[in-house]
Amino acid sequence: MPLPHAVNIVEVGPRDGLQNEPGSIDTDVKLELIRRLVEAGLRQVEATAFVSPRWVPQMADHTQVMAGLPSRPGIRFPVLTPNLKGFENAVAAGAREVAVFAAASESFSRNNINCSIAESLERFEPILVQAREREIPVRGYLSCTLGCPYEGDIAPEAVARVARRLHDMGCHQISLGDTVGTGTPLKARRMVEAVAEQVPLANLAAHFHDTYGQALANLFAVLELGIATVDSSVGGLGGCPYARGASGNVATEEVVYMLQGMGIETGVDLRALVDTVHWIHQQLGRPVQSRVARAMAG
Amino acid sequence: MPLPHAVNIVEVGPRDGLQNEPGSIDTDVKLELIRRLVEAGLRQVEATAFVSPRWVPQMADHTQVMAGLPSRPGIRFPVLTPNLKGFENAVAAGAREVAVFAAASESFSRNNINCSIAESLERFEPILVQAREREIPVRGYLSCTLGCPYEGDIAPEAVARVARRLHDMGCHQISLGDTVGTGTPLKARRMVEAVAEQVPLANLAAHFHDTYGQALANLFAVLELGIATVDSSVGGLGGCPYARGASGNVATEEVVYMLQGMGIETGVDLRALVDTVHWIHQQLGRPVQSRVARAMAG
Repeated sequence: MPLPHAVNIVEVGPRDGLQNEPGSIDTDVKLELIRRLVEAGLRQVEATAFVSPRWVPQMADHTQVMAGLPSRPGIRFPVLTPNLKGFENAVAAGAREVAVFAAASESFSRNNINCSIAESLERFEPILVQAREREIPVRGYLSCTLGCPYEGDIAPEAVARVARRLHDMGCHQISLGDTVGTGTPLKARRMVEAVAEQVPLANLAAHFHDTYGQALANLFAVLELGIATVDSSVGGLGGCPYARGASGNVATEEVVYMLQGMGIETGVDLRALVDTVHWIHQQLGRPVQSRVARAMAG
Repeated sequence: MPLPHAVNIVEVGPRDGLQNEPGSIDTDVKLELIRRLVEAGLRQVEATAFVSPRWVPQMADHTQVMAGLPSRPGIRFPVLTPNLKGFENAVAAGAREVAVFAAASESFSRNNINCSIAESLERFEPILVQAREREIPVRGYLSCTLGCPYEGDIAPEAVARVARRLHDMGCHQISLGDTVGTGTPLKARRMVEAVAEQVPLANLAAHFHDTYGQALANLFAVLELGIATVDSSVGGLGGCPYARGASGNVATEEVVYMLQGMGIETGVDLRALVDTVHWIHQQLGRPVQSRVARAMAG
């Protein structure tokens, strides 16, 4: 059991979480959320997305968000950049780390980003060329690694092929997403094993959704393989519009609770994080869903 | 990885779940719930408790519940019997399987059942003698195996000692309860390993609470040790009055979802079970909490 001694948590709440919230959220609230997350010890916080405001109005304030980020040594604020224009805007706004987004499922790629997997990779190529020249690390999100809303099961080898392509193109980390949350522990483990044959394990992250309550079990199963980077969202913010049900990303505080209980270092102050969960839910005007945050209320 | 090919689920919703519901529930609703659970494929359903109505008014209708149970070959309906009087009443009412309740924590035992662990075992002794004569199997619940609301951590060896005593006294199965839900996967695994040195693994069941969202991860961790009996509650019904937060027992449908996803046989029709979750929540007038039931709504 090569469980890692420490896990890097990539907090995706301010982007992946808030992007899926129905209402508009003040830039000040976003920045206060990011500040609180950093105060709670999170060292990688996905800050915003440089996408067209026509597609994702929730992220229209990306330039203001970048301008207001806390400046702290060692804290990383990756931003999502779907194309070269977004990448250039992100860099101009001060981004020092970016992320691109591909799918392991052809149907999902076509339905979600209007092109085949191969075309989506071609679209990222100029980003990766530019990023290499400017020494900007690029994360590669890979969605539907444990199931697709259109195709159902996705072969682990198909996931591994796209992950390998992203790695070969220069992505320093591939974030393996269970977008619909239908994965279970053995499937998660088999998928990561297949990908790890093509991409070094140290370059992989687990990005699991809790739509069916399986995320922590799936994470435990892949931590046992040595996965040491986990994406999560404060309070479990952010559903997936392609998956039924209310839950989306696994909640950061539930991940931290599990890791701390296993003696795995995260650098996160759980109490401060839980307070942040309650604070952001007050701002959003909706009840806290995460079990850890409810159990540790008050 | 000796994952079991099949898992026996002990459905505890009608007793452990409804016992912790605030309002009074009609006997007809309880019987309809049990009927639906059996229809969905559950073969062991804890039906009621023969405790004093002064202590647990929710179970005052135990005799009527026993009289109304569906008669189906192969379906087992254990009932909780805290003392010899309860046992005799249960048997008179038709019970063919009973359960007793002990704690791995001295403080919890004193606070919850007003006696030391040793005294609680003495109190069960006559039940076990009578049960052996009548060939009635007795389950032993053991609470606080992964933490105590008063003492915090409980040593795995302390759990193993009480489990061994219950086994030696004649309990055919020891249900290891994470009463406060504070367990995490490695702790769960260490506890079961310690107990399995004293009691054969085949005689152990996992009874985990989801108060901190850890239950499925903990279950996966002990399934990998070979645990093949799991207690759960339809819809996650039943909190624990000693643990903060809204959640209690792990939801049966979330357990079944995970097991089915791993190719482990349960005999349960997940769709019928999820429909039952929505039905019982309508009866209780409160929103469905379980993620599987919400994701599979409609």
